[in-house]
Amino acid sequence: MAKGRIFSGMRPTGKLHIGHMSVITNWVRLQEEYQCFFAPVDWHALTTGYEDTSMLQENTMDMLMDWLAVGLDPEKSTIFIQSHVKEHAELNLLLSMTTPLSWLERCPTYKEQLQQLGEGRDIRTYGFLGYPVLMAADILVYRADTVPVGEDQLPHLELSREIVRRFNYIYQQEVFPEPQPKLAKISMLPGVDKRKMSKSYNNDIAITLTAEDLWERVRNMVTDPQRIRKTDPGDPEVCVVHTYNKIYNIDEVPERVEQCKTAGIGCFQCKRALADKMIEVLEPIWERRAQLEQNPGYVHEVIAAGAQKARKEAGETLDIVREVMKLK
Amino acid sequence: MAKGRIFSGMRPTGKLHIGHMSVITNWVRLQEEYQCFFAPVDWHALTTGYEDTSMLQENTMDMLMDWLAVGLDPEKSTIFIQSHVKEHAELNLLLSMTTPLSWLERCPTYKEQLQQLGEGRDIRTYGFLGYPVLMAADILVYRADTVPVGEDQLPHLELSREIVRRFNYIYQQEVFPEPQPKLAKISMLPGVDKRKMSKSYNNDIAITLTAEDLWERVRNMVTDPQRIRKTDPGDPEVCVVHTYNKIYNIDEVPERVEQCKTAGIGCFQCKRALADKMIEVLEPIWERRAQLEQNPGYVHEVIAAGAQKARKEAGETLDIVREVMKLK
Repeated sequence: MAKGRIFSGMRPTGKLHIGHMSVITNWVRLQEEYQCFFAPVDWHALTTGYEDTSMLQENTMDMLMDWLAVGLDPEKSTIFIQSHVKEHAELNLLLSMTTPLSWLERCPTYKEQLQQLGEGRDIRTYGFLGYPVLMAADILVYRADTVPVGEDQLPHLELSREIVRRFNYIYQQEVFPEPQPKLAKISMLPGVDKRKMSKSYNNDIAITLTAEDLWERVRNMVTDPQRIRKTDPGDPEVCVVHTYNKIYNIDEVPERVEQCKTAGIGCFQCKRALADKMIEVLEPIWERRAQLEQNPGYVHEVIAAGAQKARKEAGETLDIVREVMKLK
Repeated sequence: MAKGRIFSGMRPTGKLHIGHMSVITNWVRLQEEYQCFFAPVDWHALTTGYEDTSMLQENTMDMLMDWLAVGLDPEKSTIFIQSHVKEHAELNLLLSMTTPLSWLERCPTYKEQLQQLGEGRDIRTYGFLGYPVLMAADILVYRADTVPVGEDQLPHLELSREIVRRFNYIYQQEVFPEPQPKLAKISMLPGVDKRKMSKSYNNDIAITLTAEDLWERVRNMVTDPQRIRKTDPGDPEVCVVHTYNKIYNIDEVPERVEQCKTAGIGCFQCKRALADKMIEVLEPIWERRAQLEQNPGYVHEVIAAGAQKARKEAGETLDIVREVMKLK
């Protein structure tokens, strides 16, 4: 018996970087215990990216292949593309009827995002304001009770619960469970230059790349700037390589720290060791990714079958929703 | 060849009164020349009525039977229920992405309606604000170029055209035509007490009622209050019966005016003559209505076939929309 039902989505931003990997490996663990629904949420991508959708298909496929390469299993999870399941749009419309405008206007992230994302883009749209309603619809259309989220998503999930409470109250029936957050210990890996990892900073490490490119990235990692010569002792606490060692080379961390502090190892050698460890972990993923690229038909089969399963579940929910709203 | 494509919808408010009849008889004429799509818009009913939907099904069926009784012909028009065609919800979501929030907030009818309808009801919802987007989706999902509207609907239709222009501009393709209003000369019949006709004032005359009830209503029509005795001359211009005569008894209007002004006819007799004329017009409608009530299965067949036709057309539009938005 599954512990519960999970929905989680991710905007299709293309190839994932290893900063995302802990999110996906968390999903890979969750699919063993929960009934899981995972979807690239392409409609959500439109809330901020409606003006240029030229990369949407490619980004969606790239992200999906990364998911599968990391270990999402279509035998265990329902994997599909949001826009292939129209029931998300129908529930979004129905929930919009019962959701007070003020809840959306006051959503703490709304104004923040308007400022952050609004530069040079016109995102003061009706759809962007309704982002949390669509997110609620994504979760509730599967009557999911559990949502793996990062801390930054907690306000949106709280809004989903408020939408549930109001809906269930108005129609006097426990149609939806209140979805609870499942906070995972997500390791936030910095970019090679120590800033936040981001494609736009060109400081990211893609999940899928070549061993040479990986080494190139690791070689450029920022270390202790005070350690100028190999004979200078270093401070691991300010070194990006150390942060990565704690994820990819945990066993050797005490030794490395000692060596760094006593100038017993050079940065180059330390980086090479990290790169080798990372390759060990990533190589099987690269192999699966290469197989998937050879066989895009398989990926299309996965999402077609996923959409069919998802539609069935979503259809059952909407039957209940239409019933309580007297739409049938 | 049809002159063009028409979509028109009406909120399911139950049995129609004869004030609505000129709208429907206008549709009956239009279906001879245009490719028409007519729908009770039950999702729209939720924008203001989500808290109590207990009458939604009954109201929808009552309205549909009135439409068919007055002469909408499922062989000529596509007649269906909005919520049976999910493509309206999908296009609503997609148009919401490109529709600036400010257009909706500044819509002249929005604040007016908030005040008029908001008393005792909580309609400050996300869905109510989005009413014009859903209305645009209703029209545009059939790429309708013509919309029969009353003057009060012109601002909403102008908003639909703005939504079209922006969408076509962003995606660099003439996906949607700009829907043009077709203003019909709609005769606004007053209620029997001379106020606006409305069920809530109990001054309405239902399209479908008995001859006795019709007579009861006509008998209670407000005439010239200055004409106290039958021998007093009257002023037809202030008389409700006169207004109705101009619709239902146009040939006899000059004679009646003369008789009223010279006290040549009593109000009772004048009303009886009007009632007889109205019965003449309405009786065939009552008969068809009675047949439909005997055969609700037929009405269900009509809307099932209508939804199927509508979905086909709407599906073709959405294929184009998904294509230009790169959702496929």
